[in-house]
Amino acid sequence: MKKIEHIGIAVKDLEHSNQLFKSLFGEKYYKIEDVESEGVKTSFFKCGPNKIELLQATTEDSPIAKFVEKKGEGIHHIAFAVDDIEAEIKRLTNEGFTMIHKAPKKGADHKLIAFLHPKSTNGVLIELCQEINK
Amino acid sequence: MKKIEHIGIAVKDLEHSNQLFKSLFGEKYYKIEDVESEGVKTSFFKCGPNKIELLQATTEDSPIAKFVEKKGEGIHHIAFAVDDIEAEIKRLTNEGFTMIHKAPKKGADHKLIAFLHPKSTNGVLIELCQEINK
Repeated sequence: MKKIEHIGIAVKDLEHSNQLFKSLFGEKYYKIEDVESEGVKTSFFKCGPNKIELLQATTEDSPIAKFVEKKGEGIHHIAFAVDDIEAEIKRLTNEGFTMIHKAPKKGADHKLIAFLHPKSTNGVLIELCQEINK
Repeated sequence: MKKIEHIGIAVKDLEHSNQLFKSLFGEKYYKIEDVESEGVKTSFFKCGPNKIELLQATTEDSPIAKFVEKKGEGIHHIAFAVDDIEAEIKRLTNEGFTMIHKAPKKGADHKLIAFLHPKSTNGVLIELCQEINK
């Protein structure tokens, strides 16, 4: 794991939160992206070598809608950058971690991603992500 | 804000979680620290330019004990590195954010710290931290 690639924060109203995080960082988001397959719209803020991803549900059955309903707004996941996501999935599986995705899938922001199950990681939802074409 | 300095994760059993995060990162913590004033013991793991801080309560009335009781184990806060914590507290107060600490206080890992109230930041507990003697 090379660094924290981003932290994902579940929000109810992306426009409102975009203003809030602009005030916090003193700078606007650098990208917004709809991820229809996941039922979310997202915005990305830079913070040095790291990013903050805000996520708002666009469908009632999206994982973010369920998270906000159950726990309210707040930190949803931590994503770690890896060089070789397939090797890392294999290593973590051998270490006894439970993968939600046993093979990488395409995520937002030009990434291959895979999530670990929070039951095996102290309640923390962890994402692995590898830049595509790198 | 220069980068994510660390993510704080509340755990019930630090020794167990130290093993878990060692398996996750492929490397042991580089420091453990008791912060008596906060009623916590902590361990720190490096991840490139970022850190993960695990926090276990050592007293029943510590903020971490209350967090775990209410929400279970999981991500407790995000800490952002700043160059001038007093200037940043002033700027964020002017932007309308609510500070839990209106003046910096001494935290773990040789830092001056101040927390923002999560009510003003989408439910996310945010810490500012400035390296001491820098």
